[in-house]
Amino acid sequence: MSWNEKLKKIPYGGDYNPEQWPEDVWEEDMKLFRQAGIDTVTLNVFSWAALQPSEDEYNFDRLDKIVKLVTENEMNIIMATSTGAHPAWMAKRHPDILRVDYKGRKRKFGGRHNSCPSSPTYKKYAQRLAMKLAEHYKHQRNIIAWHISNEFGGECYCENCENAFRNWVSDRYKTIYDVNKAWNTSFWGHTFYDFDEIVAPNELSEEFEFMGRAHTDFQGISIDYKRFMSDAILDCYKLERDAIKEIIPDANVTTNLMAFFKPLDYQKWAKEMDFVSWDNYPGPSDSPARIAMSHDLMRGCGDGAPFALMEQTPSVTNWQPYNALKRPGVMRLWSYQAMAHGADSVLFFQMRRSIGACEKYHGAVIDHVGTGNTRVFREITALGKELRDIGNATIGMRTHSDVAIMFDWDNWWAVEYSAGPSKDLAYRELIADYYESLRNMNVNVDIIGQDTDLSKYKVVIAPVLYMVKGDLDERIKNFVENGGTFVTGFFSGYVQENDLVITGGYPGKLRDILGIWVEETDSFGPDKCNSFSYHGQRYPARILCDLLHLETAKMKDDYGYLEDFYHGMPVVTSNKFGRGKAYYIATSSDESFRAAFLSDVLAASGVHSLMYASEGVEVTSREDDTATVIYILNHGDAEGIYELHDEGMEIINGIEFGAGMHKIAPKDVHIIKIMK
Amino acid sequence: MSWNEKLKKIPYGGDYNPEQWPEDVWEEDMKLFRQAGIDTVTLNVFSWAALQPSEDEYNFDRLDKIVKLVTENEMNIIMATSTGAHPAWMAKRHPDILRVDYKGRKRKFGGRHNSCPSSPTYKKYAQRLAMKLAEHYKHQRNIIAWHISNEFGGECYCENCENAFRNWVSDRYKTIYDVNKAWNTSFWGHTFYDFDEIVAPNELSEEFEFMGRAHTDFQGISIDYKRFMSDAILDCYKLERDAIKEIIPDANVTTNLMAFFKPLDYQKWAKEMDFVSWDNYPGPSDSPARIAMSHDLMRGCGDGAPFALMEQTPSVTNWQPYNALKRPGVMRLWSYQAMAHGADSVLFFQMRRSIGACEKYHGAVIDHVGTGNTRVFREITALGKELRDIGNATIGMRTHSDVAIMFDWDNWWAVEYSAGPSKDLAYRELIADYYESLRNMNVNVDIIGQDTDLSKYKVVIAPVLYMVKGDLDERIKNFVENGGTFVTGFFSGYVQENDLVITGGYPGKLRDILGIWVEETDSFGPDKCNSFSYHGQRYPARILCDLLHLETAKMKDDYGYLEDFYHGMPVVTSNKFGRGKAYYIATSSDESFRAAFLSDVLAASGVHSLMYASEGVEVTSREDDTATVIYILNHGDAEGIYELHDEGMEIINGIEFGAGMHKIAPKDVHIIKIMK
Amino acid sequence: MSWNEKLKKIPYGGDYNPEQWPEDVWEEDMKLFRQAGIDTVTLNVFSWAALQPSEDEYNFDRLDKIVKLVTENEMNIIMATSTGAHPAWMAKRHPDILRVDYKGRKRKFGGRHNSCPSSPTYKKYAQRLAMKLAEHYKHQRNIIAWHISNEFGGECYCENCENAFRNWVSDRYKTIYDVNKAWNTSFWGHTFYDFDEIVAPNELSEEFEFMGRAHTDFQGISIDYKRFMSDAILDCYKLERDAIKEIIPDANVTTNLMAFFKPLDYQKWAKEMDFVSWDNYPGPSDSPARIAMSHDLMRGCGDGAPFALMEQTPSVTNWQPYNALKRPGVMRLWSYQAMAHGADSVLFFQMRRSIGACEKYHGAVIDHVGTGNTRVFREITALGKELRDIGNATIGMRTHSDVAIMFDWDNWWAVEYSAGPSKDLAYRELIADYYESLRNMNVNVDIIGQDTDLSKYKVVIAPVLYMVKGDLDERIKNFVENGGTFVTGFFSGYVQENDLVITGGYPGKLRDILGIWVEETDSFGPDKCNSFSYHGQRYPARILCDLLHLETAKMKDDYGYLEDFYHGMPVVTSNKFGRGKAYYIATSSDESFRAAFLSDVLAASGVHSLMYASEGVEVTSREDDTATVIYILNHGDAEGIYELHDEGMEIINGIEFGAGMHKIAPKDVHIIKIMK
Repeated sequence: MSWNEKLKKIPYGGDYNPEQWPEDVWEEDMKLFRQAGIDTVTLNVFSWAALQPSEDEYNFDRLDKIVKLVTENEMNIIMATSTGAHPAWMAKRHPDILRVDYKGRKRKFGGRHNSCPSSPTYKKYAQRLAMKLAEHYKHQRNIIAWHISNEFGGECYCENCENAFRNWVSDRYKTIYDVNKAWNTSFWGHTFYDFDEIVAPNELSEEFEFMGRAHTDFQGISIDYKRFMSDAILDCYKLERDAIKEIIPDANVTTNLMAFFKPLDYQKWAKEMDFVSWDNYPGPSDSPARIAMSHDLMRGCGDGAPFALMEQTPSVTNWQPYNALKRPGVMRLWSYQAMAHGADSVLFFQMRRSIGACEKYHGAVIDHVGTGNTRVFREITALGKELRDIGNATIGMRTHSDVAIMFDWDNWWAVEYSAGPSKDLAYRELIADYYESLRNMNVNVDIIGQDTDLSKYKVVIAPVLYMVKGDLDERIKNFVENGGTFVTGFFSGYVQENDLVITGGYPGKLRDILGIWVEETDSFGPDKCNSFSYHGQRYPARILCDLLHLETAKMKDDYGYLEDFYHGMPVVTSNKFGRGKAYYIATSSDESFRAAFLSDVLAASGVHSLMYASEGVEVTSREDDTATVIYILNHGDAEGIYELHDEGMEIINGIEFGAGMHKIAPKDVHIIKIMK
Repeated sequence: MSWNEKLKKIPYGGDYNPEQWPEDVWEEDMKLFRQAGIDTVTLNVFSWAALQPSEDEYNFDRLDKIVKLVTENEMNIIMATSTGAHPAWMAKRHPDILRVDYKGRKRKFGGRHNSCPSSPTYKKYAQRLAMKLAEHYKHQRNIIAWHISNEFGGECYCENCENAFRNWVSDRYKTIYDVNKAWNTSFWGHTFYDFDEIVAPNELSEEFEFMGRAHTDFQGISIDYKRFMSDAILDCYKLERDAIKEIIPDANVTTNLMAFFKPLDYQKWAKEMDFVSWDNYPGPSDSPARIAMSHDLMRGCGDGAPFALMEQTPSVTNWQPYNALKRPGVMRLWSYQAMAHGADSVLFFQMRRSIGACEKYHGAVIDHVGTGNTRVFREITALGKELRDIGNATIGMRTHSDVAIMFDWDNWWAVEYSAGPSKDLAYRELIADYYESLRNMNVNVDIIGQDTDLSKYKVVIAPVLYMVKGDLDERIKNFVENGGTFVTGFFSGYVQENDLVITGGYPGKLRDILGIWVEETDSFGPDKCNSFSYHGQRYPARILCDLLHLETAKMKDDYGYLEDFYHGMPVVTSNKFGRGKAYYIATSSDESFRAAFLSDVLAASGVHSLMYASEGVEVTSREDDTATVIYILNHGDAEGIYELHDEGMEIINGIEFGAGMHKIAPKDVHIIKIMK
Repeated sequence: MSWNEKLKKIPYGGDYNPEQWPEDVWEEDMKLFRQAGIDTVTLNVFSWAALQPSEDEYNFDRLDKIVKLVTENEMNIIMATSTGAHPAWMAKRHPDILRVDYKGRKRKFGGRHNSCPSSPTYKKYAQRLAMKLAEHYKHQRNIIAWHISNEFGGECYCENCENAFRNWVSDRYKTIYDVNKAWNTSFWGHTFYDFDEIVAPNELSEEFEFMGRAHTDFQGISIDYKRFMSDAILDCYKLERDAIKEIIPDANVTTNLMAFFKPLDYQKWAKEMDFVSWDNYPGPSDSPARIAMSHDLMRGCGDGAPFALMEQTPSVTNWQPYNALKRPGVMRLWSYQAMAHGADSVLFFQMRRSIGACEKYHGAVIDHVGTGNTRVFREITALGKELRDIGNATIGMRTHSDVAIMFDWDNWWAVEYSAGPSKDLAYRELIADYYESLRNMNVNVDIIGQDTDLSKYKVVIAPVLYMVKGDLDERIKNFVENGGTFVTGFFSGYVQENDLVITGGYPGKLRDILGIWVEETDSFGPDKCNSFSYHGQRYPARILCDLLHLETAKMKDDYGYLEDFYHGMPVVTSNKFGRGKAYYIATSSDESFRAAFLSDVLAASGVHSLMYASEGVEVTSREDDTATVIYILNHGDAEGIYELHDEGMEIINGIEFGAGMHKIAPKDVHIIKIMK
């Protein structure tokens, strides 16, 4: 049974920490929750020390009280396991639980995400706590999901991890001979004769900070350590998940992810999760399209299934340099934006603002003033009413996309570990450039990994496809041969899965698909560029400029560089391959170029925008067998317009909308259900 | 007997380190000192290794020689105890004396301020050295003060300190239950079951550098560690002080403070000092008003009593990025500025420029050239003559101020540890903004702590009164009820002494005094702002903008924000409370606004400028029962004017000055004594 | 026998690492090498782990195969000893081989330059490997040089180094009394009673990062540690060199230096090398003149003898922020530039681009594509043909310079450790300013150390001659008395060899030579300056401005400051001293001032430019008893012209060139041999 199957409405609520408050406050909370339409609380996120005061003592009394209270108030529970921060006594008695940091320092007790993932103590007690909670609450019928730990993260370089890494390496490569080959250790005389000679790569060994990023002497070792660490932490997740499932086989288990979180390969993680949930905290300069991209990544990790918005702030964060207020209407707008991209919940961190420690100035449903008489609470209450009205009208619906963008954690690590050709190769940003162009055209986009089936898409875009793993080149070949459109560009096809260059000419195994050979690559700092023209318009050529030769590909309409000694060499190439086409862009240009180029590509591939909408108005859709729901979100500060192709029902307000042009107020949302 | 009671003139001289020189240089020193009017030397600042060559051996022979020499030359002595840097042999034999730094690293021998304040070795030997020095020099009648260590500072995070911290915490909170409450440890599952589980907060535990400042996960722990460390170092001071006083009960004991030195709570320290002394090294961009502010802080720490200017450079510093020369006349001007704000001494670091190590390019009375034939020596000689002429005409006089600005170390720590709402909340700078505005109006200002009696002031200004400790709110209430004027603003009244938020609405316990409720606060980076108008003039609203509601307060003349969704919401409010008035400024604006606003407030409160003076001319006063002395200091590069209200005697040159307008040359000083 | 004596042509080739490739690639390499005219390979640079798989096992089989292969292909070999990176097994079994870093952290296995220079393990095994290689290849006649380790570097602060430092200090100063004197330890009570109390100066003791550079509390200790560390690493070089020479007495032994590499005093190192070799990797903003300066430094270290260009990239580096391609012709141009400044080889890193680890995107003769069909390979092949044609026409020729610039590692360390007067005192840049002005005039320049014989020069320029060691002042005096021209300026003559100030007035022992006394020095940040005029032109006065007094010197034509209180004080002074003249420049100005001033000085000293050449065209010369060879290098992007004084033979193309004006294409090179 999937997590959202039985939901009668979008779960609404969030992280609730009554353990931080005297009990007389609890009743006030219940009153305000009812007033705001809150029906779901995430409990027990950080209570390990309270639940387990010593080695063999467990005490769930207070948690029982809280569970009873919210249950009596007819709320659903997302039950966390509390293992996101270990108890102080445990750190004191079992120092193996403490991490060794990137700089090589053994830590002391403090913070959160503080447990070494290879610590026997941590694993034993985390598993036991999950098991005891499951045992204790297995009959608690309003628990709709189990939430393991919290925002997993935190790399470790201790001896236990070093040994676990050696085992991981041994499992992967079997022989030390193959390790040496995979890591190219003949370079700099790094030959290992025994697995025991391998050390964790950090500032004490192969890595150091250089030009604002982590430099490694051996990409092979460092990328494998990233993989190992992601796996090691995932093992901790699985340990708790399995403990719960042994007792509650049909439990819906998740943990809250963080979208573009570099240390953890969420595409691998999501395979172990019953459903994806994540915490949406955009940065101050993130455009609506960037937020959308995070939602789409998270949905993609879960193979397109609806996900849970596990956390967002109702009003303000506290950890940014300058924490601006969410303007009136924005909390509502972004809540619906999450739904527009596949969320089946609207949850906040946090329900009541804490009074001490480092998150006390993070927004909450109930502010320090303690009443419901605040702008924020009123907005929350209004949204609560809307969500009650909407009910389950959209739950379970899925997004249909003709276009996919490829995003891959191994590539993220490999591109940003690369020594040369440019320190400005920021993988996520280069992907986001393409995503944002497509999002601005109001085209649904899936963000997929390297092992996703490509056949369901018309267009697959894989910018900076630096590392080509497994049979991806074959699958791209099949996709294009069968009529698909493939787009990639500079710094692609260079290496196989161990970051070893595929010799014989870039872009390696993609060379025949693209019909080109990249001979050299020029690199520019931010103050320099080349340029090229496309349809008579001049565009900048930045970061990298490939010097490439056409083989089977064509350079359409002289789209070559305009300057320097490679003047005239192609920038935009296209190659007919079977029934499809493969494009290559030899440089990084600007948004106006991408808009022009992608329009052409989409048009040629038969991909259409969902509808016309004025600037700042975002449009997405979700659907099921019977209906399509169109979300229209006006992120702008002015009234927008959009053109509906079919008539339908606006489900927030229950109003019929005819086909044709409609206005939408600033920050407003229309959700239009069109029956199939 | 207070330290300055018997002085016949302002002590003039400074740090003298003949131990760095062969003895034939000493006689040359004496000759030059006499020539320059030097009459006071600080001896023995860094001689521990020389005085105590091994565990039980002490050798004061060379110091005896030096004392004899300066005594024969009729100089007064400030006798330092030499414990500002421990001997190398001690570090080697007793590693407990070495600190563990913020990054968690055990240090080796080196530098100064290098002793762990909890080290048994350090404490034993420091106390013993002070005792032996006191014993040895108890009959030395020209010792006018004892100077413990030097520029105390240097935090430590070693196990001894960690244990001492646990004891300090235990003394403060008694039970571990109360510790958990004070630090809000239910957040992030930090519950402690035993004092032994507590660790020192540094980069290995709760803190890390973030956005250019120290971030802590638990403000409660970190602020208490600051308090503990300030106390622990103060204990070291007291240990030596008591050792001296046991032998010389009427010794005048001090140590040289450094004004706005964040690690040490000087308001607490000064209570243990017979008189305050401090080292004046302004930064390259410090205005004269900023220097004045440091003097006033130091005077305030000593409860208004005259202090000693223990160090200043005669010419140039060496530790700034670019060490510009003090222009001609500036050394004299700033020496008198110190006196204008309460100093009863003019002392330099250093008498003769050292030839090796890291201060050899710091200015000195006698330069490397070794003669008196330098610009700097000539200026020193001229000032020496003036000070002889002035004699004791100003010694012991005190400053009368109608206006006080509140400055509090706990607030400094708490505001800058705050996670949100803005990283630009620089406590000292926000206070200085107000001070500078007042100083520019030539109003005497006291800088006071939270426990100072407010009743003697007409106006009390407490910007960023974030943490309200003890009964301060009650005392403010009384002050205003009895006719006082109170001014505060954004980010005030939030927390009690443990940085726990006072619930029920900001500004907490100040809410009734101010008659407002602050619902939300918007935050801006440096490139954004809102604006408001005041008396028809438009001013910027920066850093933070409170969204506040009037309760009993009034928003005078529509002084509300001009932009964004909180357009029209009040910026400047005033509240009648008893016979007085309380003002609130909801944002940070610029100097022109503060000048306009503070003029209005001072006028309404009956506070007047000392006199009219043209721009760049600073005016202060000191007084005793019989006379008032007015200091007029022209910091500008052009001739200035000022208007004397009463006739008096200019005591540098002994000239009568009538009431009315007077001119003053650039960089010149007039000191006018007006009999009461 | 010197290394280049028997060469029949310029060695052409470089670092060859076939051990990274399967053997079937090797034959392809040989074919391509022949095609390109490659005749020299550097072998065995990083193979320690392969050569010595365990404590007592050595295996040279693969190296034998490689040696055989390249010998059969008639190539010369530069045989490296492989000790630039130790084996992983050795690090595991003998942790003493691992360094402790500047931050005080014991490192683990990783990277290169990773051995502690005081490690008994490292020394034993490095020496033994060198010995075994020499034994094994002593009859290999095509080994033209032995290459110890690789790019020596890497400071260590471990206990072994600390003890070695104590011994070094004891050897230098004999008594602890003299150590205390040399380091001025009476400052800050640092007196040492025993050598064992001395600790290595790093972040745990006397040093910390401050304002972007390393700060030390005791320059004496820190400079001595730099000297010790340079010596300690040099000892490692000597250990291997001696092991080889014991077996092959006439071996030509070198190691590849890196020009301006601050940690190692190459002037001292070169004395232990049979010939200097170095790796030329200019930074992205280095002008041709800066590259020339590095060549001249390297030639100067070797006392003017021809050196080897051991490494350069044929196309692109990979470790810079943005790795731009060398434009067409630039590889050839810079190869000839090396020869123009004294190189007798043209060698590349690397022959075949590696496929894994951190240098895989560094350019190579054979690219990842694996063929000779690339722009880069074609340019290499063309140059290969030219070098074959040139043959030995220039080998062994030396540079004659009338002008010398003094550069000294002790000064580099001391100036940049100085606490004050300005953080902008960048020693190398201040020297380069003068070099670049002279280079732009096409004057041959020698870069000399403080112990070089001055008598062969007409002009000696010693900017920032801060530390004057030994009898340098006497030798300058003799030089000037005998008619030489000496130029120096601000921050000169301050200290003796231990960084102790020479009292009695700056510039210390140079005061009589220069005829001035510097009383004070003003310091400016980048946003401020004073100014002065020279021949009626106004120039900026930056960084430092000395306030100086003329003694015997003259201030020619009122070249004084134009602003501030030292208006009118001299900037440019000249002093007749014996038959020569000594100039002093009291501030840092711009290139246009230096060009004007140096023109005057050269003219007055009878020094002439090699010839007229248009901007961007560099001219140098080398000569022997029978001929002079003039190198004309057009670094510009436009055609240049130059005026040949005598007729000669252009030896690349074998064409006669008459006296008079000639054109030279952009990036082109003319090498004209003129018989004497």
